[in-house]
Amino acid sequence: MIAALRARLPAGPLTSVGIGDDAAVVAAPGGRVVAAVDLLIEGRHFRRDWSSAYDVGVKAAARSLADIAAMGAVNTALLVALAAPGTLPARWAIDLADGLAAEAARAGAGIVGGDTARGDSIILSVTALGDLTSRPVLRSGARPGDLVAVTGQLGHSAAGLALLQVGWPAPGMAAAADPPDALAALVAAHRRPAPPYDAGPEAARLGATAMIDISDGLLADLGHVAAASGAQVELGRARLAPGRALLEAAASLMAAAPSARTEAADSPPPVPPAAFPAGSPESVALDWVLTGGEDHALVASFPPGTALPARWRVIGEVRDGSGVTVDGTPHAGPAGWEHFR
Amino acid sequence: MIAALRARLPAGPLTSVGIGDDAAVVAAPGGRVVAAVDLLIEGRHFRRDWSSAYDVGVKAAARSLADIAAMGAVNTALLVALAAPGTLPARWAIDLADGLAAEAARAGAGIVGGDTARGDSIILSVTALGDLTSRPVLRSGARPGDLVAVTGQLGHSAAGLALLQVGWPAPGMAAAADPPDALAALVAAHRRPAPPYDAGPEAARLGATAMIDISDGLLADLGHVAAASGAQVELGRARLAPGRALLEAAASLMAAAPSARTEAADSPPPVPPAAFPAGSPESVALDWVLTGGEDHALVASFPPGTALPARWRVIGEVRDGSGVTVDGTPHAGPAGWEHFR
Repeated sequence: MIAALRARLPAGPLTSVGIGDDAAVVAAPGGRVVAAVDLLIEGRHFRRDWSSAYDVGVKAAARSLADIAAMGAVNTALLVALAAPGTLPARWAIDLADGLAAEAARAGAGIVGGDTARGDSIILSVTALGDLTSRPVLRSGARPGDLVAVTGQLGHSAAGLALLQVGWPAPGMAAAADPPDALAALVAAHRRPAPPYDAGPEAARLGATAMIDISDGLLADLGHVAAASGAQVELGRARLAPGRALLEAAASLMAAAPSARTEAADSPPPVPPAAFPAGSPESVALDWVLTGGEDHALVASFPPGTALPARWRVIGEVRDGSGVTVDGTPHAGPAGWEHFR
Repeated sequence: MIAALRARLPAGPLTSVGIGDDAAVVAAPGGRVVAAVDLLIEGRHFRRDWSSAYDVGVKAAARSLADIAAMGAVNTALLVALAAPGTLPARWAIDLADGLAAEAARAGAGIVGGDTARGDSIILSVTALGDLTSRPVLRSGARPGDLVAVTGQLGHSAAGLALLQVGWPAPGMAAAADPPDALAALVAAHRRPAPPYDAGPEAARLGATAMIDISDGLLADLGHVAAASGAQVELGRARLAPGRALLEAAASLMAAAPSARTEAADSPPPVPPAAFPAGSPESVALDWVLTGGEDHALVASFPPGTALPARWRVIGEVRDGSGVTVDGTPHAGPAGWEHFR
């Protein structure tokens, strides 16, 4: 089994010793290593009836790979520890490995080490390693006057999760979508996030003063930047207008049976309950943009006047003060995913 | 809680960015990073009634730190992911952090990153990072004619586990020990392994051709070296004679009630059942030396004639052939810990 998994896990271009010895050896050309670890737990971060093993592999890899990109670093390697019940089908583990390997490769990284053990449920721990060609971009460097810009999707994963929670695909909901696959794309975004890894080193080259990947929600993660930087982040609502897919998903959800909505509010991981009582598809969709996590978009601050490539959308600015505001007002709803809720 | 844990987890001398940002940044002076991950799972690798939280922290750190040493590398940093039930006492997590930090410090490493999440049971995933000042010492470099030498304890953790499994401390067993704390020291060795981390880089400097840390048992782990090197490892039984503590533990266990021994054979993690039917304390103790894991001693091969410091005990040699033999004969019993048994 381990041999079968190992054969599906390429070591990457910078690895001189991969899986199979006591430890891996990976080049660190910059003379420093960037490292982060994230857990992915069945029932809390994924459900096997909503995500395939391949999806889970992609998601587990993306969480950690995005952390490295958010430092302005280039991903080099992953180490994966898997605890799973003895009843786990071998096919599931192999598909998981394929998902991990595919997402690692998309970020330029290999898979260089791991551990497996029997556990009560499926728990993945993924450690990502990266290399820095410049200074690291921390959360603490945002300065009043800086632009705030984002690249990647906002709220798509949260919308996809909300659709799954009310039983998507239901016949009525699918028919409401135009184009027909708009909702399917949101569900796919929840299952297989696609962080813009190369935008991390790009932001560092452009002079980013602070950066974070959006794992808990735009407001929550910018709140970390504001706190670490001792500044306020002000966002413009007009610059965060939800796209058509999010609006259609919100309309479809609001047309779904009230019983389904109640059920959704109880399901783990929870959709912020505040999203459902709100009066319009626009407000529900905006809430996904502001508080939806797990898309792993990158948001960064840049010195005023920085010429940003097109994929970076300016959504606000840094000011004196504290916290995060939208059009000058602190956001009333939940700020995003709360760990240990 | 996370702030309380962070305050107890020093970042180490080579860390420029520690816990609190998206990822850590650790110096890699050698231009390469050595990395390994290991899981520690409640009920499988530890029991809360047999080990304190501090003990579990030491053990979790030691498993991964020893892997780095076994490459000939110097430990620099740990990343720790913890899944735990919401009912876990805060005190337990804090004591765990203290144990992790103490053992990391003993190896010269800091704790630079982590993740926490709610899970059904306690699962720790510890990733260790290290720096190489020489070539890595792999499992595959042993050559016929090489000496085989070990440093660190053999079988102490297995003996300590066996004592716990029959209910140590029982009044009769404690009285049988001379000196009185000999059995307690074995139990302590099981709870808090103390790998000789600095012996790893020392072996590399001495020209070690292959090295591994003994996590699964001497025979099992040397079996990995033999297979990777395409050679045979021959051990001398006289050089592996168990010390007094192991002999006393074996005698005490054999004097314990048969019901206790039966219970021991069923408890996880299992003591190799073959240890109990054997006819003498000497054979039980030798079995611990040959098959007991988790002491994380280091065993290495060296070119013939290498002048070894006193802490390295020569226990055998490398020959043409395959597998591991003791006095020319393949060992009959179980070779050590079998994962997923």
